[in-house]
Amino acid sequence: MRDVYVLGVGQIPVTKEKDEPLREMAARAVRAALADAGVETADALYTGNMLSGMLSHQQHLGALVADAAGLRGVEAATAEAACGSGGAAMRWGYMAVAGGLHDVVVVCGVEKMTHTDRYETTRALATASDWPNEGAHGHSFVSLNAIIMQEYLRRYRANRSLFAAFALNAHHNAVTNPYALFQKAITIEKYEESPMVQAPIRLYDASPICDGAAAIVLGTAETAAARRDRRPRVRVAASAAATDSVGIADRRDVLAMDGVVASTRKAYAQAGVGPEAIDFFELHDAFTIMAVLALEAAGCAEPGKGLWLGADGEITLEGRIPISTLGGLKARGHPVGATGVYQLVETYLQLTGQAGPNQVADARIGMAQNVGGTGATVITHILERVD
Amino acid sequence: MRDVYVLGVGQIPVTKEKDEPLREMAARAVRAALADAGVETADALYTGNMLSGMLSHQQHLGALVADAAGLRGVEAATAEAACGSGGAAMRWGYMAVAGGLHDVVVVCGVEKMTHTDRYETTRALATASDWPNEGAHGHSFVSLNAIIMQEYLRRYRANRSLFAAFALNAHHNAVTNPYALFQKAITIEKYEESPMVQAPIRLYDASPICDGAAAIVLGTAETAAARRDRRPRVRVAASAAATDSVGIADRRDVLAMDGVVASTRKAYAQAGVGPEAIDFFELHDAFTIMAVLALEAAGCAEPGKGLWLGADGEITLEGRIPISTLGGLKARGHPVGATGVYQLVETYLQLTGQAGPNQVADARIGMAQNVGGTGATVITHILERVD
Repeated sequence: MRDVYVLGVGQIPVTKEKDEPLREMAARAVRAALADAGVETADALYTGNMLSGMLSHQQHLGALVADAAGLRGVEAATAEAACGSGGAAMRWGYMAVAGGLHDVVVVCGVEKMTHTDRYETTRALATASDWPNEGAHGHSFVSLNAIIMQEYLRRYRANRSLFAAFALNAHHNAVTNPYALFQKAITIEKYEESPMVQAPIRLYDASPICDGAAAIVLGTAETAAARRDRRPRVRVAASAAATDSVGIADRRDVLAMDGVVASTRKAYAQAGVGPEAIDFFELHDAFTIMAVLALEAAGCAEPGKGLWLGADGEITLEGRIPISTLGGLKARGHPVGATGVYQLVETYLQLTGQAGPNQVADARIGMAQNVGGTGATVITHILERVD
Repeated sequence: MRDVYVLGVGQIPVTKEKDEPLREMAARAVRAALADAGVETADALYTGNMLSGMLSHQQHLGALVADAAGLRGVEAATAEAACGSGGAAMRWGYMAVAGGLHDVVVVCGVEKMTHTDRYETTRALATASDWPNEGAHGHSFVSLNAIIMQEYLRRYRANRSLFAAFALNAHHNAVTNPYALFQKAITIEKYEESPMVQAPIRLYDASPICDGAAAIVLGTAETAAARRDRRPRVRVAASAAATDSVGIADRRDVLAMDGVVASTRKAYAQAGVGPEAIDFFELHDAFTIMAVLALEAAGCAEPGKGLWLGADGEITLEGRIPISTLGGLKARGHPVGATGVYQLVETYLQLTGQAGPNQVADARIGMAQNVGGTGATVITHILERVD
């Protein structure tokens, strides 16, 4: 396999503004990424998306986005793995370059989910669950995560307020990110006063419904070396995917994130590193409980101890394992099919010293992990600055 | 890149029976393919599907089908390119093996579309069009193909009845295929008497709405060589994808299938053959006009002459370029996200001498082409018997 490099990235601000057509959102991100990469075209485009058929009457986004972005004719298709769709598209793009099938590939993630009725959107999101056994019985991703969070509280006799640190960290990091949906900090008081959406999940434990698009251009070592700018080169040190049962009742344990364990282990093995080498971790904090469980399953904390990383300040930009460094799903926003690509864009910005006030000092290795459902699809990428 | 071999195939009968759960349909095909390949598991599963979110409230099929098929934990995701979704999944699986990422991969295509109201299904299918410019204005794939067929009739002063040969050929070839939806021949009289769905398209010009699932196992040369049976080895000699604008009004010419031209040319170049070397062609005959245009764009006939291949008997099992050898989309059926994989399964059966009464004599090279929309996504695979 060939080494794969990130040539450039593009993103549009996450929004609830509703007015831009789906294809234009995606095309803007793709054009920005191509410009950032300094290339005029690409051999292929893989688009991550989950909801466009249900909410926008539009499937077939691969060819549609390619055409709108000025890439008519190239190979193009859509990758879908629920909220892990962006990561899945990245995995496809990685394979195309690593495997020698293409030299320059664009990976895009796009989602438009604010223009429809909130109940319709929530129901569409529930198609990421095991529908006959979960969604059809009224479960939403809030209710499924409430079950998981409740069990965490019970098993570890955990203090519910400790979850606040994850929301506060995400909001703090989004303040200076111009692409974030919520560019404002929150206090512990505001968190505690926020509505209980579904016990024990408060509003600030959950990521918002929003629209967005992001893109990343991948290429070979030769293409990366040919760039004339002085920006550090960033290599994809690992690309890994694993799955688990979709329905949480089919898992061996409601708190067991076997998909995260398997996906992360594969990624560590490919990159030749362990969790201690990761300088920051763009994890899938769709809910605060998901951030906690991901940290534990990725080996950054023992089971039952992930929650304490927040209280101990270890997840901040200056901490041992910074997470959600530009706002995460909670505050940058979670336009579901686009999220995995936003994570990768932000990882690249950190590794190239472009994270502004949120720069993680001396960041050389960053991990981005995109999750579909409550842990059924887990796609992990490790990016590394190589010069 | 490594050579990629087909290790085995599986399919379930195409049906309108409605009663089997989506995941079970897919799992049955996957298990059949694994058994046929003589392997117990696989490294990854890529599932092609278009409609499950809209018609079955179920996205996230990758992980769901993997679990149902006994492959919990493996890498899994869904590929979507409208009616080209099965071919897109094959393309992903091909990349994974060719690129050295995985040694054994299963590609599955599944669609369940008969359990919902016919109008809802037709509307869901129209999400493969450029929705704001086509579907939203009431266009369906019947009406879009009617426009194209009408222009073909006008431009070439063609005799409408010549299209019958394509429907008759497909139905004739489906008679002895136990997996085909319509195992019965039709006559020219029956074709001419069939209802005019939308002029100039008669019922027998169009493929049916139906359910189905098919799967194919891919592996390396070493895995293929390790098999103990005496079945001929089949190599994937070419895998190619190209796109065109989704909306037909954006094409340079309503009859120009630039996506087919580009995709087929790439495939011929990779396989080192031309159209004359193709022993049979599993083309995307969603409508008779699509079969005619595909033959022309693939270099099997001059523009305006593809229609005559039917009248001259050249598309039959004994003809110069047999098509739809086990019924095609018209008579085997067109469960949209599964179709591309059915085509590949049938291509493999032909090349390994398992096509029964429909065997194309001395078939060594077969081409399968899966199309999304009216030609916007075109994925072409050439399979070759190598011993």
